Amino acid sequence: MDVVSQMKLFVEPHSIAIIGATTKTGAFSFNITEQLINHGFNGEIYPVNPKAGHILGRKAYRSIGEVPAKVDLALIPVWERFAVPGLVKECVEAGIKAIIVVTQGFADGDREGRELQDSIFRIAREGGARVLGPNSLGVANAFIGLNTAFMPCKMDRLPLGLICQSGIFFPGFHTLRTLGKGIDVANGCDVHVADALEYFENDPDTSVILLHIEGVKDGRRFVETARRVSRKKPIIALKTARSEEGARVAQSHTGSLAGREDLFRALARQCGIVEAIDMEEMEDLAKAFLRLPLMRGRRVGIVSMSGGAAVMLVDACARYGLEVGTLSPETLARLQQLSPPWMKATNPMDFWPLNMHSKLGLVETTRSCLRQFAADANIDALVLTLGIAYGQESSQVAQTVSELTRTFAKPICWWSGSSSREEAILDLEKTGVVISPSCERAIRTLRKLSDRWQFLAQCL
Amino acid sequence: MDVVSQMKLFVEPHSIAIIGATTKTGAFSFNITEQLINHGFNGEIYPVNPKAGHILGRKAYRSIGEVPAKVDLALIPVWERFAVPGLVKECVEAGIKAIIVVTQGFADGDREGRELQDSIFRIAREGGARVLGPNSLGVANAFIGLNTAFMPCKMDRLPLGLICQSGIFFPGFHTLRTLGKGIDVANGCDVHVADALEYFENDPDTSVILLHIEGVKDGRRFVETARRVSRKKPIIALKTARSEEGARVAQSHTGSLAGREDLFRALARQCGIVEAIDMEEMEDLAKAFLRLPLMRGRRVGIVSMSGGAAVMLVDACARYGLEVGTLSPETLARLQQLSPPWMKATNPMDFWPLNMHSKLGLVETTRSCLRQFAADANIDALVLTLGIAYGQESSQVAQTVSELTRTFAKPICWWSGSSSREEAILDLEKTGVVISPSCERAIRTLRKLSDRWQFLAQCL
Repeated sequence: MDVVSQMKLFVEPHSIAIIGATTKTGAFSFNITEQLINHGFNGEIYPVNPKAGHILGRKAYRSIGEVPAKVDLALIPVWERFAVPGLVKECVEAGIKAIIVVTQGFADGDREGRELQDSIFRIAREGGARVLGPNSLGVANAFIGLNTAFMPCKMDRLPLGLICQSGIFFPGFHTLRTLGKGIDVANGCDVHVADALEYFENDPDTSVILLHIEGVKDGRRFVETARRVSRKKPIIALKTARSEEGARVAQSHTGSLAGREDLFRALARQCGIVEAIDMEEMEDLAKAFLRLPLMRGRRVGIVSMSGGAAVMLVDACARYGLEVGTLSPETLARLQQLSPPWMKATNPMDFWPLNMHSKLGLVETTRSCLRQFAADANIDALVLTLGIAYGQESSQVAQTVSELTRTFAKPICWWSGSSSREEAILDLEKTGVVISPSCERAIRTLRKLSDRWQFLAQCL
Repeated sequence: MDVVSQMKLFVEPHSIAIIGATTKTGAFSFNITEQLINHGFNGEIYPVNPKAGHILGRKAYRSIGEVPAKVDLALIPVWERFAVPGLVKECVEAGIKAIIVVTQGFADGDREGRELQDSIFRIAREGGARVLGPNSLGVANAFIGLNTAFMPCKMDRLPLGLICQSGIFFPGFHTLRTLGKGIDVANGCDVHVADALEYFENDPDTSVILLHIEGVKDGRRFVETARRVSRKKPIIALKTARSEEGARVAQSHTGSLAGREDLFRALARQCGIVEAIDMEEMEDLAKAFLRLPLMRGRRVGIVSMSGGAAVMLVDACARYGLEVGTLSPETLARLQQLSPPWMKATNPMDFWPLNMHSKLGLVETTRSCLRQFAADANIDALVLTLGIAYGQESSQVAQTVSELTRTFAKPICWWSGSSSREEAILDLEKTGVVISPSCERAIRTLRKLSDRWQFLAQCL
């Protein structure tokens, strides 16, 4: 079976067996059967438990061999690690080709665990099956209501594919649900990042790939795959276990041999991977790559309600290697008409004095500034700072921001001030705009949208 | 009058006159009289407007000279900048000693504006008055319901004193209201940062000082004052206009001559100023210095529900120059008893396997790990990562975190995972704990708590 067909058994299964399904239910029972049902999985679920007659109204089979139908995917969440190789063998003998091992205590534990992990891999390989894990939350697929995690996870049908080595990524981010689809490679005894990348490369539901990686396995295949995939879809990668100490700890987390930070960085650049420094940047970039066009140059336009924020944005441009664009004489002349006589129209534009002077009202002042900036050929992207406190007016501005983004194919990032509430941000983002949590993060995000444009241009 | 008494007229006035008070009210009227009333100012308010009989039920005086009572503080928010020097003169003649100029278009505008600003300063100085601004939102004091901003600002009676050069700081941060007390130095034609520092130095309501500064004025006095004040109270400073381009823009924002980044950094270190790199770090540090004890060393203990997060925290320790502490043999032995046999207890501690193995339940597992770490003399501070999704259990853990912080006088930062909602964080923070928005920011904050300890130790 080719890699993609194989991976489809994991991410798009029609039927799932849970080997060692627990009969406990409710909070802190970590009952995968229950979670599968709650997440709304639209395929068949077969609990397997030697002792249980029924689990949540479903017949429980005494062994996987007794399940009378075809099973695409088996999950093994038993607590006792020594039981796992035998269970994997039973799965293989039942003709199952995709097995997720949730159990911990393998390469993430001691030497004996590492040997057990090797034997799992061998048994599966000999039986023509593939293993995801051990130590894995498994997979998620919002498009079919699938989530094999043992705790509740909220999902949205976003074109976001998540590949991770830690369950910490499954619940998503502050202002963005990442599942989409998800594959927790975890210890990666068999299925690893390159397999997951190939799946997302060919997945029509996915347009942006998020990658959390502790250690690269089979470096050559990873590089070849990442380089090919990143020409089609952006791969936003957070490499952890960057420090020597972190790498040591990663060995006891997923048993990964982590590489040096500078090596991964060079490799990422070579492959066109968009690197995120931490989870916050990963969230910023996921939103930006989902919603915004790329930045076709380095020149930023700054439209700010606050002079103080404009200064911070200019600092951030210097820090992240972007330029504060020089507006054309025509744009400057038009902006000057709106300005009080003592003020020289320029980029960055502090539009508060314009608002007070022009009497157009805040919304119209903001809109006309934005339009002038967006239409100027000397500007490749915009940052708008506008206190979100202005409520309804913000939604009116958001409309304009969306329109301008589409019309001029330039990304616009919006910083709403540090006092804006998360709820208001989420509301506003429903219109498709991107709200950055800080000045600096808006500029950092634009830089990555610009790098991506340059990478794709080089690939032509 | 000495500086502190003078500054008290600004921040603790008993009576305020608004010169050029507008008669418009409601949203977008920017009516300071209305805002003063809404903020609940408990002193006298005297609107001054040649045309208006009454404003919001208060008699309006035709000129400041007609106000029949003593006025501590005058506000000048007129739109026409050329009118300001004359109004300042009238204030001085009426015996007012503290004047806030809200009007824009002075050193923040053109050369003529700079000259106007100089004349304002001269007129005030000759009349024995001091001027805050121009281009200033003014002052805030939650303890007497005072806020001179022309838009609504939420305030809490926190022992936080804010000094800023931009109104962007008045509305506060995502999860923290900074007002407390606030002084917007803005263009700083007269009252500048050193004056505000002296006020907060002697203010019993203030224990932590936040400083946003574009440009230092009278460097020698600033250094002397900052050095003295920071021995008593932490000064958390965000220097903007750091880049050459930013410095140029700052000239048209507040007319500040901004210094080079490395110069300010050296100066900050010398003065014991705690530097924040951006508004996000300022928020983190404000919360930490308000609520947590200092970190008396460099050794961090990591108690994490996620192995992946533990790896990130260890990376962050390397990045921010903290050590992952080595637990004592006694602590290790006790933690080993809770652990599954395949797992070697260590720092960082991934307590998920302990939770599954020990059957104590999540809350008790977390508590016992935290207690062991906090009690260990080889650990100076803790980071806890615990998904906030666990709701009620989180509050129970928060109790323990508060108790341990008090008992052992060690700071504990908590990272709740990127999916936790702001509302849940705010709720949890009411118990006095500090929730960090990311792994990295938890460690970065601890580093600053450790630096502050070292600075104070050197001062002994």
